[in-house]
Amino acid sequence: MVEKLGKSTYILKNKPSIVGYGSVVGIHEFEGPIGKEFDHFDSDCRFGEDSFEKAESRMQKIAMETALKRAKISENKIDLVFAGDLLNQCIGSTFCLRNTPIPFIGLYGACSTFTLSLALASITVNCNLTDYSMAITSSHFCSAERQYRFPLEYGSIRPQTSQRTTTGAGATVIGKGNTGIYVNAVSFGCIEDLGVTDANNMGAAMAPAAANTLKTYFQDTDTSVEDYDLIFTGDLGYIGTKLLYELLEMDRIDIRYRHNDCGLLIYDRNRQDVHSGGSGCGCSASVFNSFVINRLKNGEFKNILFMSTGALLSPTSTLQGETIPGIAHIVNVKSQTITPRQ
Amino acid sequence: MVEKLGKSTYILKNKPSIVGYGSVVGIHEFEGPIGKEFDHFDSDCRFGEDSFEKAESRMQKIAMETALKRAKISENKIDLVFAGDLLNQCIGSTFCLRNTPIPFIGLYGACSTFTLSLALASITVNCNLTDYSMAITSSHFCSAERQYRFPLEYGSIRPQTSQRTTTGAGATVIGKGNTGIYVNAVSFGCIEDLGVTDANNMGAAMAPAAANTLKTYFQDTDTSVEDYDLIFTGDLGYIGTKLLYELLEMDRIDIRYRHNDCGLLIYDRNRQDVHSGGSGCGCSASVFNSFVINRLKNGEFKNILFMSTGALLSPTSTLQGETIPGIAHIVNVKSQTITPRQ
Repeated sequence: MVEKLGKSTYILKNKPSIVGYGSVVGIHEFEGPIGKEFDHFDSDCRFGEDSFEKAESRMQKIAMETALKRAKISENKIDLVFAGDLLNQCIGSTFCLRNTPIPFIGLYGACSTFTLSLALASITVNCNLTDYSMAITSSHFCSAERQYRFPLEYGSIRPQTSQRTTTGAGATVIGKGNTGIYVNAVSFGCIEDLGVTDANNMGAAMAPAAANTLKTYFQDTDTSVEDYDLIFTGDLGYIGTKLLYELLEMDRIDIRYRHNDCGLLIYDRNRQDVHSGGSGCGCSASVFNSFVINRLKNGEFKNILFMSTGALLSPTSTLQGETIPGIAHIVNVKSQTITPRQ
Repeated sequence: MVEKLGKSTYILKNKPSIVGYGSVVGIHEFEGPIGKEFDHFDSDCRFGEDSFEKAESRMQKIAMETALKRAKISENKIDLVFAGDLLNQCIGSTFCLRNTPIPFIGLYGACSTFTLSLALASITVNCNLTDYSMAITSSHFCSAERQYRFPLEYGSIRPQTSQRTTTGAGATVIGKGNTGIYVNAVSFGCIEDLGVTDANNMGAAMAPAAANTLKTYFQDTDTSVEDYDLIFTGDLGYIGTKLLYELLEMDRIDIRYRHNDCGLLIYDRNRQDVHSGGSGCGCSASVFNSFVINRLKNGEFKNILFMSTGALLSPTSTLQGETIPGIAHIVNVKSQTITPRQ
């Protein structure tokens, strides 16, 4: 049912399928190069709520409802939901899911949380624990700025190495029905800390974990870059992506012609003021549940790796002079759809 | 391998065993009624570190090392670790586990996190995903006061309904070897919110979730109070416990003669200034990995329910006038040891 390869990788032999998905973003993301792919956006980022934190929960709710609608099931069919976000005490997720009839497992992996939740949702369906599991994560530029940096009203200037927290949410329903798109393997990463201390350069802090998780995955599965149509990273941004290439080159691995980063896909860095690119667990969640799944459905992608990366810092650890640990998890998603390439 | 009962409960037929465990507490907890049961304590709560946050990571490390020593394995034998704490961005866990060779899954369930991590660790061993999985959680009075309420130096007075965040950590290693003590079933709760808004009365906010998770468990498993030697709640404290009794009485369930609460066990409320009792995910973690396991080992307990409860608020949600959602998860632990009752 599950074949374990190496220490970190699990092949899910029952092919847990993606049966529903939904994506929601803010106006900035809607105006980006892949804006048309998202299911919903709101023009003022408040989604009808009176605080940014409540707006984030609202985004999760819309993503969840969209995913359930596509899956053609009601929320009481979901046996377990794996959810998380960047807000303190994960209130984006808990306030979205309170008083729903869905048993709740709260996760925290910073910007890696979406892949983590998708991996665990897939495992639970694969192992017959559940008929349907759901993964939901989100992030919001305004709530993240206030919590991690400064309230927007201060108008503080961020350095060019920094990334913009994506306003977005994504939800995926995993089930047993054969939709042709399934999670073939998952791999959980270890926490890497190479001593980066600059909280305005999280790409640099996350790149070592991304490199290690990817190398381990290739070793565990005895595959290489050429076996995949594309390798997505969650949100390393411009600087983190360059560092990932450099780190992998030390092991003679060259991913650059088969790689894209959700943080670079979602914005146009020449046109939009996003510095090193997008970040936040709503970034990989919204890109996966739109751009990526759309291309798995139309046959453009047959076999991809999707790796979200997280910087496990807190404002307190930074003030205490601590370095920034990073983590990365992988899901391998395959498509068997026979729709011709469009 | 797993039998699903109802919507929330999973019977783990492969009997994943508790093969190692460790507990660490602060001086206040060591001076409490069950102080002698803990493996380690520190007389000034800093555990040799220069901040309370680092002390919390250090506690997790000591708990982990103690558990590994009892399991007679090294850390590289652990296939997955499920860990969490109350600190923002879970830095208690991530800084404990950085640069270890253990794939890391970060969890957040407030004070329910220990049972959540133990449940997931047990499932992964039961389903042959891992040979060994570990659960670790912690909390620290001083880091929690600073983060959730006020720095200690302010000398603020808390109301009698409030609970004292326990300084403590606990780690459990789950494995396949038959030690006679195993996790028989787990049950995941939904998020309940009955509208409590007083952040100084978290027992009241958690009691509805505890009542619902327990009722659901009894229904799912077709068992009742009399089937268990004892039912532990994580940390409802004095007020939350009274409310739990009242809520269950509406369904004619009386647990009071077979119930204890970790938040009431760990302190002597008459002698120690702890108001409504202990709380924090280090409370149920340290009590489970000492007092509870000791009695499963000596045969005093054969069949218990252990339910940690969490209040899923944040200081921001409270300032925004939000109510406090609660959650509770259950593990059913059985002992087959034949050592005579001592």
